[in-house]
Amino acid sequence: MEKPATIIDIAKALNISPSTVSRALNNHPSISSQTKEQVNELANKLNYHPNLTARNLLKKKSGIIGVVVPEITSYFFSTVITGIQDVVSSVGYKLIISQTNENFDEEKKLIHEMAQMRVEGLLVSPSFNTQGFEHLEDARKAGIPVVLFDRDIPGFESSKVFVDVYDGAYQAVKYLIEAGCQRIAHIAGPEHIPTFQERMSAYQNALKDYNRELYPELIIKSTGFSAEDGVEACEHLLSQSFDALFCVNDAVAIGAMHVLREKGYKIPEDISVIGYDDEPYSCYFSPGLTTIWQPVYDMGMLSSKILLDTITKEKQTIRKEILKPELVLRQSSVPLN
Amino acid sequence: MEKPATIIDIAKALNISPSTVSRALNNHPSISSQTKEQVNELANKLNYHPNLTARNLLKKKSGIIGVVVPEITSYFFSTVITGIQDVVSSVGYKLIISQTNENFDEEKKLIHEMAQMRVEGLLVSPSFNTQGFEHLEDARKAGIPVVLFDRDIPGFESSKVFVDVYDGAYQAVKYLIEAGCQRIAHIAGPEHIPTFQERMSAYQNALKDYNRELYPELIIKSTGFSAEDGVEACEHLLSQSFDALFCVNDAVAIGAMHVLREKGYKIPEDISVIGYDDEPYSCYFSPGLTTIWQPVYDMGMLSSKILLDTITKEKQTIRKEILKPELVLRQSSVPLN
Repeated sequence: MEKPATIIDIAKALNISPSTVSRALNNHPSISSQTKEQVNELANKLNYHPNLTARNLLKKKSGIIGVVVPEITSYFFSTVITGIQDVVSSVGYKLIISQTNENFDEEKKLIHEMAQMRVEGLLVSPSFNTQGFEHLEDARKAGIPVVLFDRDIPGFESSKVFVDVYDGAYQAVKYLIEAGCQRIAHIAGPEHIPTFQERMSAYQNALKDYNRELYPELIIKSTGFSAEDGVEACEHLLSQSFDALFCVNDAVAIGAMHVLREKGYKIPEDISVIGYDDEPYSCYFSPGLTTIWQPVYDMGMLSSKILLDTITKEKQTIRKEILKPELVLRQSSVPLN
Repeated sequence: MEKPATIIDIAKALNISPSTVSRALNNHPSISSQTKEQVNELANKLNYHPNLTARNLLKKKSGIIGVVVPEITSYFFSTVITGIQDVVSSVGYKLIISQTNENFDEEKKLIHEMAQMRVEGLLVSPSFNTQGFEHLEDARKAGIPVVLFDRDIPGFESSKVFVDVYDGAYQAVKYLIEAGCQRIAHIAGPEHIPTFQERMSAYQNALKDYNRELYPELIIKSTGFSAEDGVEACEHLLSQSFDALFCVNDAVAIGAMHVLREKGYKIPEDISVIGYDDEPYSCYFSPGLTTIWQPVYDMGMLSSKILLDTITKEKQTIRKEILKPELVLRQSSVPLN
């Protein structure tokens, strides 16, 4: 491969000093327009890529926002990113995205590297294994504002945008109670994931608040949260009697409905099913899946708006926003009387 | 916000020259270990972020691979990216990802910026509106190898990894013919998208090759390729008589099946349906959707392996790989006799 051209190559070729080349490339007023023209022409010809970081230090702008998320392949995070992209692109910023795969070390490295690239701001959803926030403080001390979204790091003082996960789960279970369901089962997600813990607490508290008995045998803690995990969990649950099923997410609900249909149960006549997320296909199942819609796109939009405000106003204002989810009624749950 | 510390701040504080600081930070042999220690200690304390690009020019490594894709929110591209990430992470590289939203200008800017960050290589799936390849040649001339995947730019000489889209569509239609279907309809995607054009050509050629009549009224050109577009297209199609439906992708097939079920058609007894993509939920519909599985994850893995080979061997070897899709039979299509 060819070596990239440097300022020194250009300087030698034009018989001028490297600092003259540098100032010419940065449009410095002390350099004649003739020299600037010569330098820029040769830079283009030699395919010289300016040292972005150095130039950014002069300009104090990189025009880049960094996004660090656990993963980008789920409907959830890809929709947040779409919201971010739409806001950020509209004001001419570029987005670079990296995924931590729920690995804290990876998260630290990625934040560090993005700081080195001098991103103008960071939008971060920390991994489940993130402990402490020194890595984010480091970025902030280097002048890079940080907005957290979806997941919190308690004690880290920054703008934060979350969805009220507890409220969504509570709405779902409250609906099933009010619709007259007596034995409401729950397929929970892996215990170490705070979002899923909140959904479980909301399920338990809704039952308590409405003076319903909590049947421990009706709670299945799944080891994952895919449709396949829903199939497995629901097969275990079939030894119990229940007339409603609140699933930790739509994927699990879709797997569970598959099992229930195969076993000849009628949804919702025999068993009502509610999911969580309102994924794009959830309305196309038969019956359509009742679920919780979350303002995920809005979360991306709002996080990036707050970040851009912080960048452009050059003062660190801290905002905490909690967005409300909504129950979307379809045919998989019995209607209210 | 605090200003980031510079080499000059560190030099002033320690009463040494900036070039000494720079050499100390880069572990230059001419600098005493005592000075190196002092400099590094203060750099940590002041939260100094080294100029990555300058340091990379010395080291000639950034450890970063750039990925530029039309979008990251579809199952297709997010799965390719997972394949890329798995390979690249395993050898300690970091990934930064950007989406063009099918905008050629955006693509040019993103490629340029990634080159400025001195990514060590680029994995690119060009936008539908990309014309020419000067932007990619520029990156390559700057010493950054490029591998194209999924979509081609004819004339651009680089390693390329594609899936044989035509073959997948041909397999689907051939199956329907061999299963005895007489009037096979097609919901096609938007005409300007080459991938969808190929699926349409395969549909037409399979009918020709098997001496079946082509009924123009059984082809609906949809303006989009979502489940909603499938609903709309299928409603138009209902005025025609047909016993099989090949859809441009799973999303469209899911929308179409929804309409057919609502109108009381039995799938596959009245109408066989085949999709394309094998999305994660396609097996959970009732009936499960027959579709074309594409080695999308493998495409990501292979593209990044080829790129890493080029980077580490420091010679530009050109490989062109075409991966084969497979027909996945489920219950939405009639069985072969």
